[in-house]
Amino acid sequence: MADRDPNLPPAPGEYGDQRGGALAVTTGPIRGSKKIHVEGPGGIRVAMREVHLEPSSGEPPVPVYDPSGPYTDAEATIDITSGLPELRRDWIRSRGDVEEKPQRTVKPEDNGQLGPDRSGGVDPFPNVRRQVLRAKPSHNVTQMHYARKGIITPEMEYVAIRENLGRQEALNRPRDGESFGAAIPDFITPEFVRDEVARGHAIIPNNINHPESEPMAIGRNFLVKINANIGNSAVASDVASEVDKMVWAIRWGADTVMDLSTGRNIHDTREWIIRNSPVPIGTVPIYQALEKVGGIAEDLNWDIFADTLIEQAEQGVDYFTIHAGVRLPYVPMAANRVTGIVSRGGSIMAKWCLAHHRESFLYEKFDEICEIMKAYDIAFSLGDGLRPGSIADANDEAQFAELYTLGELTKKAWEQDVQVMIEGPGHVPMHKIRENMTKQLEACDEAPFYTLGPLTTDIAPGYDHITSAIGAAQIGWYGTAMLCYVTPKEHLGLPDRDDVKVGVVTYKLAAHAADLAKGHPAAQVRDDALSKARFEFRWRDQFNLSLDPDTAEQYHDQTLPAEGAKTAHFCSMCGPKFCSMKISQEVREFAAKQNSELGEQLLDGEEAERGMQEMSEKYREGGNALYVDRD
Amino acid sequence: MADRDPNLPPAPGEYGDQRGGALAVTTGPIRGSKKIHVEGPGGIRVAMREVHLEPSSGEPPVPVYDPSGPYTDAEATIDITSGLPELRRDWIRSRGDVEEKPQRTVKPEDNGQLGPDRSGGVDPFPNVRRQVLRAKPSHNVTQMHYARKGIITPEMEYVAIRENLGRQEALNRPRDGESFGAAIPDFITPEFVRDEVARGHAIIPNNINHPESEPMAIGRNFLVKINANIGNSAVASDVASEVDKMVWAIRWGADTVMDLSTGRNIHDTREWIIRNSPVPIGTVPIYQALEKVGGIAEDLNWDIFADTLIEQAEQGVDYFTIHAGVRLPYVPMAANRVTGIVSRGGSIMAKWCLAHHRESFLYEKFDEICEIMKAYDIAFSLGDGLRPGSIADANDEAQFAELYTLGELTKKAWEQDVQVMIEGPGHVPMHKIRENMTKQLEACDEAPFYTLGPLTTDIAPGYDHITSAIGAAQIGWYGTAMLCYVTPKEHLGLPDRDDVKVGVVTYKLAAHAADLAKGHPAAQVRDDALSKARFEFRWRDQFNLSLDPDTAEQYHDQTLPAEGAKTAHFCSMCGPKFCSMKISQEVREFAAKQNSELGEQLLDGEEAERGMQEMSEKYREGGNALYVDRD
Repeated sequence: MADRDPNLPPAPGEYGDQRGGALAVTTGPIRGSKKIHVEGPGGIRVAMREVHLEPSSGEPPVPVYDPSGPYTDAEATIDITSGLPELRRDWIRSRGDVEEKPQRTVKPEDNGQLGPDRSGGVDPFPNVRRQVLRAKPSHNVTQMHYARKGIITPEMEYVAIRENLGRQEALNRPRDGESFGAAIPDFITPEFVRDEVARGHAIIPNNINHPESEPMAIGRNFLVKINANIGNSAVASDVASEVDKMVWAIRWGADTVMDLSTGRNIHDTREWIIRNSPVPIGTVPIYQALEKVGGIAEDLNWDIFADTLIEQAEQGVDYFTIHAGVRLPYVPMAANRVTGIVSRGGSIMAKWCLAHHRESFLYEKFDEICEIMKAYDIAFSLGDGLRPGSIADANDEAQFAELYTLGELTKKAWEQDVQVMIEGPGHVPMHKIRENMTKQLEACDEAPFYTLGPLTTDIAPGYDHITSAIGAAQIGWYGTAMLCYVTPKEHLGLPDRDDVKVGVVTYKLAAHAADLAKGHPAAQVRDDALSKARFEFRWRDQFNLSLDPDTAEQYHDQTLPAEGAKTAHFCSMCGPKFCSMKISQEVREFAAKQNSELGEQLLDGEEAERGMQEMSEKYREGGNALYVDRD
Repeated sequence: MADRDPNLPPAPGEYGDQRGGALAVTTGPIRGSKKIHVEGPGGIRVAMREVHLEPSSGEPPVPVYDPSGPYTDAEATIDITSGLPELRRDWIRSRGDVEEKPQRTVKPEDNGQLGPDRSGGVDPFPNVRRQVLRAKPSHNVTQMHYARKGIITPEMEYVAIRENLGRQEALNRPRDGESFGAAIPDFITPEFVRDEVARGHAIIPNNINHPESEPMAIGRNFLVKINANIGNSAVASDVASEVDKMVWAIRWGADTVMDLSTGRNIHDTREWIIRNSPVPIGTVPIYQALEKVGGIAEDLNWDIFADTLIEQAEQGVDYFTIHAGVRLPYVPMAANRVTGIVSRGGSIMAKWCLAHHRESFLYEKFDEICEIMKAYDIAFSLGDGLRPGSIADANDEAQFAELYTLGELTKKAWEQDVQVMIEGPGHVPMHKIRENMTKQLEACDEAPFYTLGPLTTDIAPGYDHITSAIGAAQIGWYGTAMLCYVTPKEHLGLPDRDDVKVGVVTYKLAAHAADLAKGHPAAQVRDDALSKARFEFRWRDQFNLSLDPDTAEQYHDQTLPAEGAKTAHFCSMCGPKFCSMKISQEVREFAAKQNSELGEQLLDGEEAERGMQEMSEKYREGGNALYVDRD
C-alpha cells in the first residue's frame, strides 16, 4: 500500500468495498513521513505526522500537524462503506447529557428527488445509524457550555496536544513576529483551550453525531486553519468523486471541509462524506432547503429550513453557514454595486426578503436556530451574504452593515453558549484588508474570523488561488483564524482533483506564512529544517519536508532525473561548477576556522594588508579547490 | 497566423528562417485583443494592447500595458534571424554625442570554449553589427545625464504616454489606496518622467546599442514592473529555447528579461536574445567572467571583468547586476547563517575576497565601472549578494550591512549620472518585509528597489511562485519598483516554457495587486471591466480581460465545453437554477425600480408592514420568475 504513487487516483477496486469501482479513495502514508500518535491524559491518542530525515543529517524527525486522519496511517484498515472508527464515542456519551433517538426518516426531497426522473441516485450509505444523539431536554452539549462551566473536555485536551506540535523545541528560541494583538502563548495548555472556547475566541466544531472527528480548534491564538470546499452541483460531479475529494483534500492539509452540494443526492452524498471524515464538515443548509422547494427562493419558510437543520444535525454536520445577517434594509445597499450580491446564500435570502418584503426569517428565528445548534453542538459560521464580489465593491456600506449585524447575532448565540465563527470576504485590495479584520474584531468581540481569500485583484481568472492567497496570507497574519481555499477554477468551473490539491497546498502555505508572521513559536521549525536540508544538499529531506513532496520531487526530476542527482551536491539551476550553496559552505568552513584570527585586523591599514596576505596563504594551503566531496 | 493556438509552441518551420526548425518563436495577437500605437510628439508611436469587448456591452475597449513587442502585432513581420527594427536608432544618433566604432572581436572564451570539446556551439547571430556605438570622449549618454540637464528625451516622452494608459478615464474617479509615501501623480507628463529620472527615483534602462528596445521606466511612482529570468546553464537548456522563452515571457507581460546564462555559448545566445528583444535585457557579467577563468573564482580579476563589461555593453545589455556590495568584512557575517550566501554572484565574490584576503575589486573599481556604464547608458542593478536564502536569515546583519554599502555606491554612481536600481531579497517572513523597504528607501535615497519575491516561507518547494508572490505583492505595495519573478521550479530545476508563463502571470497579478493598493489612478479600470463582464455573463470578455485568456477559457471549457455555455447566463459552479449573479441582477433591477418608494418605510412598524405587502405584490406582478432571458 505504501508503495503506490499517492499522486495517482486509486485504481478502481483497490480499496475496501469498491461498489463497482466507483467509490475509492487514496490511502497510504504521505511520502517520507509516518503517522504517529501522542498519548494524552485519559488514554487519548493525538494523531500527528513525523517527517524523518536522512540519518547522516543528525537531525531529529520533524513533527507536523496532520488532519489527514487514518487514511495516511499505514497501520489503519480503511473501509469507506463502514466509515471511520468513532474516536469520540465514549467522550460524548460519558458526559451523561445526551440521549438516543431514532433518526428522522429520510424523505425523497432530502435527495432533491422532486422531478419526474428519479433514477441516477447514489446508493445510501450502508452503515447508516438508525439511532442518533441529541441533548437531553434542558441540556446544552456545546464545548462552549462546558468551557464556561470550567470543564476541560477530552476534546480540549486533544486540541492542546495537537496545537503544541514541536512547541517544546521552539521554547528554546526567541519569539519573533507581529501578532496585531493576538495572544499566542508559548505553550498551549488544556486550560488555555478551555478559556479561549469559553470567551468565544476559539471554537471546536464537533457535532455529537460526528464522533469520527478528530478535535481541532479555530481561533486566532491557534495555528491558522484552512477549509476546502467540495460538493456536486446540478451541472457536474457525483458522490464518488466528492468522497474521494474530501479524503484527497485532508491528505494535503485541509483542516475542515465544506460540502456545498446542490442538486440531487445531497443527503446521501453528505452521509458518505461525514461517516468517512476525520475533520469537521460544514454545510450551507439553505442550499438543501432551496432544493426542497424546487429552487424557488420565495417559497422557502422557517419550517422547511428548521427541518433541514435537524436532518443535517442528526447526520453530524459540525458547522452551519447561516446568512442571518442579510437583513431586508441592507438589500438595497447592494443595488449599485458592480457585482451585486455574489454569495449564493445571500442572494437567496435577499430575493426572499424582497419577494415577501419581510425581515429575513433567519434573522427573526435566530434564537430558535440556537436552540437546535446547542442540542448537537453545531457551530455557527455566520455567513457574509453581502460580501464584495469585486475590488470595486470592497468594504462598502452593505458589507459592513451586515458585519455589525453578525456581531449582534454572535452575542445572541453566546447567550446560549453556542459556538460561533464569522465569515468574511471575498474580493478586497490589499490596502483595505486590514480594515476588515479590525472591524470584525470590534464588531464580533474576537469570535474567530473565517475568510474566503480575499482576492486582491479581479484580473486573473485561472490564477485566483494566487490572487486570493496573497490576501489570505495577510488577513491570516492580521488575525483571521481559518482561510477558505480558492482553487484555480474559481469563477470558471468546478475544481477537479488536481485543482483541489493545488488549492489546499496554496492555502497551507498562506496559512503557514501567516503563522510565521504572527510569531507562532513553533512555526519556523519546519522552515529551518527544510532550509538546512537545502543548504546541505539533502534533496530527499527537502522533498519530504515540503507541503507537497510528490510535486517537489517530480519538478527536480524533470531537469535531473538520474537517481544520483538526488544525492548530488549541486542542482540544475547552476550546475556542478557553479553552486552558490557549495561556495558558501566553503566560506562558512573557512570563516569558522579563521574567524577569531580575522578579528580586528580587517580594514586596518598595513596590518590588515599583512593579515590578509596571511589568511590568503592559509586558505590556499587549506585546499581551495571548489569541488571537494563533502563525504 | 492569428488563428493558431498561442498556447502551443510554434510548429518547427512556422516562422522566419527556421534554422532547421530549432529557432522558432510564438507570434500572433493575444486572444481577444489587438496591438495599437498611440502617437506622440516627434512621430513617436507607443505600443499598447486593446481588449475589445462584446458590442452588446456598450463598453469601450480596455487599453492595457503591453511589453510584448511586435510579436503580438498581426501587422508585423517577424524574422528572428534579422532581429527587430531599431525603434530608437535616430533618437540615439540625433543627439550627436555618440560615435561608431568596430565591435570588439569575439574571443573563444566569450562563448565559454575553453575545454577540449568545441563542438555543439550555436550559430552566431547572422545579422550581427560590425560597428557599435559608444559615447564620444568626455560625453555622457545616460538618460539621467540628459534629465539633469533639463532635456526631455523621446525615451521620456514614450514612457509618459505608455504609463498613462487609461489614466484619462481614471481621472474621473476618486483616488484610493495607501502609497507609503510614494508620489504617484494623477497624470504622467514627460516633465514628470524627466524629473524622476534626474532625481534617481526612476530609471529608463536602454543601452544605446539596444535600439530595438521600447522605453520603459522602473520607479515607485510608475506602474510596478516585473522581470523574468531566462538562461541556459551547464546542465540544460539551449539557445533556441532561450530566445523562445524571452518572446514567451514578454508575451505574458515580462517588462524586462534577465539572461542568466552560464556555461558555453553565452555570447552568441545573448546576441540572439538582445537583437530580438523589445524589452531591456539584464545580465550578471560576473557569470561570464567566471566562465572565462574556467570557473575558478579566485582567478577573476579586474581586467577580465572590465573586458566582459565592454563585450556586453557593445552587444546592448541594458542593465548589469554587479555585486559590488559584498565587501570583505561582511563575509564572516554570513558564516553562521542557516543558508550562508545564496546569491551566485555574491558567493563568487565572497570566495574571491577570502581567497585573496582583499577588498572586492568590484567595490574598489566602482568609479571605473561607472565610466563604462555611462558611455553606453547601462543601468546598475546593484546586486544583493548577501540576501537571505531562508526565513531564518532574513533581515540580518550581513544583509543590511550590504544594503547600506549599496546606498553609498548609489551616490557614487549618481555623481557620474549613471542610472541605478537596487536588488533586494529573497526569503523574508511577512512581518519583516516592510523593514526591507524602509531601510532601502533610507539607505539608497529612493533609487528604485528590485526584489526577488520575497518568499514568505521556505516549506513549499514546487509552489515558490506563490510563496514569493505573497511577498512580492506586499513589497510592491510598500514601494518596490520591479519584482523579479520566481517560477514553480525555483530551488528544484530549470523552468520550462510552462513554468515561465506561470511565473510571469503570477508576478503580473502580484504587481497589479500592488498597483491597486498603492492607489495607481488607472489600475482599477481593468478590474472593473472584468467584474462587470462577469456580472453580465459576458464570458468571452472575462477571458479576454484576464492576464491569461487561454487558461481562463480552457478552465471554463473543462466543465462546460459546449459553445452555448459561453453565452449562457449561468456557470458550472451553481448551475442554471441557482445563480447568485442572476439573482442579484434581479435584486438590482427591483431595488432600482422601487428604491425611492422603499425610502423611510422600512422597519417602521405598521406602515412598514403595509409597505412591504405592497412592494411584495408589485414584485410578483413584475414577474418574479428567475430565468427571464436578458436579451
